[in-house]
Amino acid sequence: MTKVLAVNAGSSSLKFQLFNMPQEEVLLKGLLERIGQEKSQLVLTVNGEKIKKELPIPNHDVAVEIVLRELVETKVLKSLDELHGVGHRVTHGGELFAESAIINDDVIEKIDSLSDLAPLHNPANLAAIKAFFKVLPNIHAVAVFDTAFHQTMPKSSYLYSLPFEYYENFGIRKYGFHGTSHKYVAQRAAVMLRKPLEQLRLISCHLGNGSSIAAIEYGKSIDTTMGFTPLAGLTMGTRSGDIDPALIPYIMEKTEKSADEVVEILNKKSGLLALSGISSDLRDIEEAADKGDERANLALEVFASRIHKYIGSYAARMRGVDAIIFTAGIGENSDIVRARVATGLEFMGVYFDPSLNNVRGEETFISYPHSPVKLLIIPTNEEVMIARDTYDLMNVEDK
Amino acid sequence: MTKVLAVNAGSSSLKFQLFNMPQEEVLLKGLLERIGQEKSQLVLTVNGEKIKKELPIPNHDVAVEIVLRELVETKVLKSLDELHGVGHRVTHGGELFAESAIINDDVIEKIDSLSDLAPLHNPANLAAIKAFFKVLPNIHAVAVFDTAFHQTMPKSSYLYSLPFEYYENFGIRKYGFHGTSHKYVAQRAAVMLRKPLEQLRLISCHLGNGSSIAAIEYGKSIDTTMGFTPLAGLTMGTRSGDIDPALIPYIMEKTEKSADEVVEILNKKSGLLALSGISSDLRDIEEAADKGDERANLALEVFASRIHKYIGSYAARMRGVDAIIFTAGIGENSDIVRARVATGLEFMGVYFDPSLNNVRGEETFISYPHSPVKLLIIPTNEEVMIARDTYDLMNVEDK
Repeated sequence: MTKVLAVNAGSSSLKFQLFNMPQEEVLLKGLLERIGQEKSQLVLTVNGEKIKKELPIPNHDVAVEIVLRELVETKVLKSLDELHGVGHRVTHGGELFAESAIINDDVIEKIDSLSDLAPLHNPANLAAIKAFFKVLPNIHAVAVFDTAFHQTMPKSSYLYSLPFEYYENFGIRKYGFHGTSHKYVAQRAAVMLRKPLEQLRLISCHLGNGSSIAAIEYGKSIDTTMGFTPLAGLTMGTRSGDIDPALIPYIMEKTEKSADEVVEILNKKSGLLALSGISSDLRDIEEAADKGDERANLALEVFASRIHKYIGSYAARMRGVDAIIFTAGIGENSDIVRARVATGLEFMGVYFDPSLNNVRGEETFISYPHSPVKLLIIPTNEEVMIARDTYDLMNVEDK
Repeated sequence: MTKVLAVNAGSSSLKFQLFNMPQEEVLLKGLLERIGQEKSQLVLTVNGEKIKKELPIPNHDVAVEIVLRELVETKVLKSLDELHGVGHRVTHGGELFAESAIINDDVIEKIDSLSDLAPLHNPANLAAIKAFFKVLPNIHAVAVFDTAFHQTMPKSSYLYSLPFEYYENFGIRKYGFHGTSHKYVAQRAAVMLRKPLEQLRLISCHLGNGSSIAAIEYGKSIDTTMGFTPLAGLTMGTRSGDIDPALIPYIMEKTEKSADEVVEILNKKSGLLALSGISSDLRDIEEAADKGDERANLALEVFASRIHKYIGSYAARMRGVDAIIFTAGIGENSDIVRARVATGLEFMGVYFDPSLNNVRGEETFISYPHSPVKLLIIPTNEEVMIARDTYDLMNVEDK
């Protein structure tokens, strides 16, 4: 049996899951929070039991040491020799990575060179990668990129209508994110629909605190709502999504802020939070809307309406669609959003069955059996995708 | 018979048409160009004959004097007493004007107060309005707003997902433009389809050097692609349309430009011009694409693909669509763009008939007779709308 650790490192957090491969059995899950801050803590889940520890985690090196120590102390591993591979989620693969890659010096250099495109994320990913190598210099390590799945987009989707040299000189184009999640649910959809992925046109709605939709034509992403950064597209928890770009200098002038400050507001103080005036968490908004709060209801309406419109847009992009997938926190759990989004698409063959919609976080259909276009709920699982790619590439490397 | 002049004044140009109302007969058309610049000129069309004169036009006052003089000199009017009304196209009516208005001091003040939202256009419109009053202080004058038709949009369409006080304090919202054109073609569509406008869901594609699409549900605009300014939405001659807003500070840093300069590039050096590297004029691009130019073909693809996607989006917005309208320079004349846009929408009941598509600038169907959703070409006519509203409001004023 092969043990593979899937790692998702942010600037102040590190999530990990240990898998038995190829069975994909989860042996342990954990989360380190507030790295480099006060009151940092570790949360572990072993055999369904949750353990919480407050302890100092000054940096990613220490975080990784804690992770590895816990793997042995909890007796999930007898020793670190049993750990065969580590898969790292890496935010930005730019145009350099269209698939996962075995990490070597060249790959590390490339991930570093893309830090300009993801200044918050890629350096944190690299810090974790290097910390693991420090303790386990010979471990199999694999990078799984959030952008890779979207590298199949055609030029007509990824190019902005901007001076061409911006693309050539500065890498300005649409990259898209949530690729690992979109890819996972697309594969699951093919299983549920009992058809090869290569024969399906899918619209995948990854709706969480960050949200994006992908048009997946015959297994390949051909368009997505996020852009050069994760700001574009849908209304999100605190992100504005699409706006008229001319608003930026206008807001700068009116509020006497810099362009960076305005984009910071677009990223952190907009979206559902701004529309509702209540919270960035959709559950709070649904609760308030239920009690008759007008702004909460408006936020829900804007949120759902944008998703609804992008579904129409991507159906047109693919000249039709076979199934629409709801995934991630909101997609898996909000029957309210799903109902608003899925209603009113009968003109394109989507027949939503409200009686099937009262479910949370399980793979199921929510369209009528006779509906030409199927509606699916599919809980996403980026960790298992990371473990899979790591396991597959390890075995290639060993041959 | 009542003579009404329709006027469209820009910062350096003034277009006018004299109508016999209510017959809507055009008696004379004219265009003054390069106002306030060197080599300014007047082009007149009377009885199908074109007259060109180079003459100094230092400002809008002189421009208006020339227009009025020509009306008499060409003998289209016996004297200026015969001119009953002037209708002015005004770019921005903000939230103050949901329909055309008889111009009085209050209206002038309001148009002026909206100059912040349209700093290039509203002042030019006002200059022409004032110049006409200077010569004809008692003339009936009516303002016809480019934004008015879109004032029926619901909040869920016009609100951005931005801090709410930006809307309340700075008027930041989607306004939309080309309203007079969208309204005109919607009315004509109802005639062609032999159904009341109030029973139709229409998608109007106004495709010219500036382009926008409107979702017109039962006679009312409920969504449109342009936004706070005419920069948003589709790829245009020189405008970028939608981009990831986070690109603005990124481009500023990379090119060492200010936010205003970057938005200037987005407005004037982007779009088809930037993608093709050839021209902002679609005719040049079609010609180059025909000869195999790759960038020209890419520009065409991006342009058509965005329109195609917005059609899907607006069909979803209205839960279906009865007809799709092509209008303005490109919409009326480019069979290539129409074919690219209208193909691949069969999944939503749109059956394009290529054999009907080889037409220019005439009202006609380009869908198969059995197509549930109709495709229409309708030449737009903003001038006649201005004349109509002017004539109608004059008569109200006289009662």
